[in-house]
Amino acid sequence: MFCAVTLRTAALSKSFRSAFLAQSTTAHIRSCSARVPRRTRALERTCAMSTGRRVCKVPKGTRDFLPEQMAIRQRVFALVTSVFERHGAVTIETPVFELKETLLGQYGEESKLIYDIADQGGELLSLRYDLTVPFARFLATHGIVSLKRYQLGRVYRRDQPAIARGRFREFYQCDFDIAGQHPPMVPDAEVLRVLIEVLDEFAALSPYHRQRLGSYQVKLSHRGLLDAILQLCGVPKELLRPICSSIDKLDKEPWDVVRKEMIDVKGLTAPCADRIGQFVTRAGKPRELLRELQADHSLCCGKFGAEEALADLERLFSYLEAMGNVLERCTLNLALARGLDYYTGLIFEAVLTDGSTPLGSIGAGGRYDRLVEDFAGKPVPCVGTSIGIERIFSLMEEAERELAQATGRVIRASKTQVLVVGIGKVDLVQRLKLCDELWRAHLAAECLYAERPKMARQLQYALERGIPVLAILGEDELAAGVVGLKRLSTQEQIQMQRGPPLVQAIRDWLASESNQEAGQESVDRDGNCRPEPVASVRDPTATTPGAN
Amino acid sequence: MFCAVTLRTAALSKSFRSAFLAQSTTAHIRSCSARVPRRTRALERTCAMSTGRRVCKVPKGTRDFLPEQMAIRQRVFALVTSVFERHGAVTIETPVFELKETLLGQYGEESKLIYDIADQGGELLSLRYDLTVPFARFLATHGIVSLKRYQLGRVYRRDQPAIARGRFREFYQCDFDIAGQHPPMVPDAEVLRVLIEVLDEFAALSPYHRQRLGSYQVKLSHRGLLDAILQLCGVPKELLRPICSSIDKLDKEPWDVVRKEMIDVKGLTAPCADRIGQFVTRAGKPRELLRELQADHSLCCGKFGAEEALADLERLFSYLEAMGNVLERCTLNLALARGLDYYTGLIFEAVLTDGSTPLGSIGAGGRYDRLVEDFAGKPVPCVGTSIGIERIFSLMEEAERELAQATGRVIRASKTQVLVVGIGKVDLVQRLKLCDELWRAHLAAECLYAERPKMARQLQYALERGIPVLAILGEDELAAGVVGLKRLSTQEQIQMQRGPPLVQAIRDWLASESNQEAGQESVDRDGNCRPEPVASVRDPTATTPGAN
Repeated sequence: MFCAVTLRTAALSKSFRSAFLAQSTTAHIRSCSARVPRRTRALERTCAMSTGRRVCKVPKGTRDFLPEQMAIRQRVFALVTSVFERHGAVTIETPVFELKETLLGQYGEESKLIYDIADQGGELLSLRYDLTVPFARFLATHGIVSLKRYQLGRVYRRDQPAIARGRFREFYQCDFDIAGQHPPMVPDAEVLRVLIEVLDEFAALSPYHRQRLGSYQVKLSHRGLLDAILQLCGVPKELLRPICSSIDKLDKEPWDVVRKEMIDVKGLTAPCADRIGQFVTRAGKPRELLRELQADHSLCCGKFGAEEALADLERLFSYLEAMGNVLERCTLNLALARGLDYYTGLIFEAVLTDGSTPLGSIGAGGRYDRLVEDFAGKPVPCVGTSIGIERIFSLMEEAERELAQATGRVIRASKTQVLVVGIGKVDLVQRLKLCDELWRAHLAAECLYAERPKMARQLQYALERGIPVLAILGEDELAAGVVGLKRLSTQEQIQMQRGPPLVQAIRDWLASESNQEAGQESVDRDGNCRPEPVASVRDPTATTPGAN
Repeated sequence: MFCAVTLRTAALSKSFRSAFLAQSTTAHIRSCSARVPRRTRALERTCAMSTGRRVCKVPKGTRDFLPEQMAIRQRVFALVTSVFERHGAVTIETPVFELKETLLGQYGEESKLIYDIADQGGELLSLRYDLTVPFARFLATHGIVSLKRYQLGRVYRRDQPAIARGRFREFYQCDFDIAGQHPPMVPDAEVLRVLIEVLDEFAALSPYHRQRLGSYQVKLSHRGLLDAILQLCGVPKELLRPICSSIDKLDKEPWDVVRKEMIDVKGLTAPCADRIGQFVTRAGKPRELLRELQADHSLCCGKFGAEEALADLERLFSYLEAMGNVLERCTLNLALARGLDYYTGLIFEAVLTDGSTPLGSIGAGGRYDRLVEDFAGKPVPCVGTSIGIERIFSLMEEAERELAQATGRVIRASKTQVLVVGIGKVDLVQRLKLCDELWRAHLAAECLYAERPKMARQLQYALERGIPVLAILGEDELAAGVVGLKRLSTQEQIQMQRGPPLVQAIRDWLASESNQEAGQESVDRDGNCRPEPVASVRDPTATTPGAN
């Protein structure tokens, strides 16, 4: 149905052409990509001046998100969701607050950070602190014993905010969990694969993304192994958890400091602490360290349960190798302990690294087999991961802004595809009629609301927002039943008959625009936006080592 | 790259074939679509039994959403969002709680329904009651004077819940608002067009959807007109708002009851009330009633401002006619008053009707030109609509379940495209390797976690979830480097070489599956799921009356 019509510029008014030439696209883009910080400064000024009026600030530790930021956040959420769904996960939703008693005693010392709802009569309520306890409550409430679910939602912590370090009182968690009785370590392996797949997809978006998100490491350990080691070292049973929480500090403190805490605060003997030190400073390639530990007869003496934990890890490694050798991204790290008490098996943490230096966690999780039992009375074993989505969002925002600057593109907040532009005496009603035709064809179209806006203003509107196509109506076009089309990226200009030819021509241009943006994202068969294959590792046809 | 291979069933084990024949697809589907209510009953049993354990219920007036419900909700949100974005709207996000003083005094009597956060030191906070006041605060905070934005978010009202009537304490609002100084009534017209477009798209999804959502009416009025009428009838200025709130009851009470309240409670004289009665019982085709009112010299005498309001409406009607004649969906209704005080111009409400009987509101809004000024100090005129999304969701849920039953399809909660099925001695690791190949090709794939699950179980898993394609691995296939593919909707069966031919064959099947589902939804050029054109009115090429 594509109907080629010769290029005709005569119908475009003089003012349009001169306005177009006068505009510097790049300058516009620059000013747009700098808009967010400028608005933030405007906020400070506005608020400072607003004495005598209502205060107009957000609560401490919370944020508004501006349109440009939301466009990036939605892209982050869409990518994470597409990976979760690729693994067959379904989603659920739970209320933003739970009964106070649902959360009570679930978070140890951190319970003091829970927001309570004021007692205005009726039930005592608290804002959710994470998505894991509500998930356990959800399974129990509905009597569900098997579920692979993901959930994106905001959680609340009355913590001291540290905006620069990305610590907020309201933030998103993105969780993927597998609940149910399954053969050992299979769901655990898929959870790890999902975490790694998410991180790899972000890194594959562009070189700017790769630079920020491409270098990471997944540290693995096992609570059963840690307990066995501690018992072998002579830690009494009642000190297992306290010593675990000391070990958990090893990612921030050197061994000497942790050792001192074990002896001075937790009451271990120095030889006992030193025996622990010989283990927990060990980290390395999973298969190698596993073999060493399996060969350690004092550890694997049948007394501490180390054999089961090591057998678990061996199974896990086989599955990880089968799933495209994601084991290569992992290290076995005996210093990993994880703060939360509820973990019962595998524990892991994904850490961004700058080559060698760790730069902070961007994902973590583990197996928690007894949390649901607390509500349901019967055990529903679970394993899951939480993606460090706010951290990823900050890095994505940086990368997207750099990418936009490098490519001279605008970070688009709106999805408008066509700006309907009037020239000469064409009035608003005529432009609205054309918009209506485009909306009916499911094209995203806008026009300026003024009766007869200046050409320069219309063009500026399109450039600032990165709207790719102008549909231009002059008196001649109206009389002839045609529309002038201009594609801003290539400066191509054609004229099309209104109706199907017009719609088809716009669709063709839009399709070729999105092909040109390839490497950024593409549309999958099932309609989800998916990052485009970038490297050969993403080639569906490439057989990776050990894949077949 | 589609490589046709002859049908080969020999590799499929006997158990598979017999299992397949034994299964009744329809029975499975029935049992699946009935799953939600069954789970709800299970909940009651579980909770009743759970004495001595943690209670496992949601707070009063709130809900969990199960995977099948979430699939429908996401479809509702995607459709609404796609219409909003088609009109160039961007989205923002604001915190779920605001400073208490931001909400204070904004909602009149309803303020008692606001949830406060407990005072745990620091700022006093409240959960948001709607998205409109936070939007006004947002504009002021960031010094934004012009924005077309949509926002989907949960709001909180400590109301007496009425689950059967769809009144909850936590529920979603979907708002579309246009802020900024614009020529009169143009944004107002677009807001109305957006509301109507959303409702029409839902109705167009299937005959089941049309039956529930296709019959509605948008009632229009204008605060300025109402004020003029009341003044003409002799209502003193200080009684304008109280009398307005009496008129607002006309959709529930007959005129006699409202008249009595005006006289007995609000203190109007009987002749004054009767004069009002002659106006507010008037409703009809917008152009006709407008002409009558314009011809009313006592009303349009230059004293009450009726002329400006009527001129506004006349402009609005022209724009609505230009935008595909959405005016046909509207009535001018002088009984419409809208409860909230902050409206200053156009007001409207979309009401589902059963032919003639009104069945309740599914969308409403209006112009509020002074709300932002309260925060910003300078006026930012706004007009917007809120979609009654929870109501639409209930009706969608009914329609989707009926549609699923009629077409013998499952309501799919997961997006899995391929189930990797093992037969004979093929183990889990082999199936995981094939899953990995499919994941890398961005296909959504799963396999059962058991080492060698029974064929019947694997098949049942696929049927219950509506997974369209089986990728079958037997020992013969493994040895030959091929995979058996089975398409469950058509029972087609082929064998493909692993790698690109396999991936391409699956993609071709999936594409033709989604073509077969046309009339339900399709994927647009820009990757959004959009409802498929159903009737000729949606044909992009069809020129509607007055469209050109």
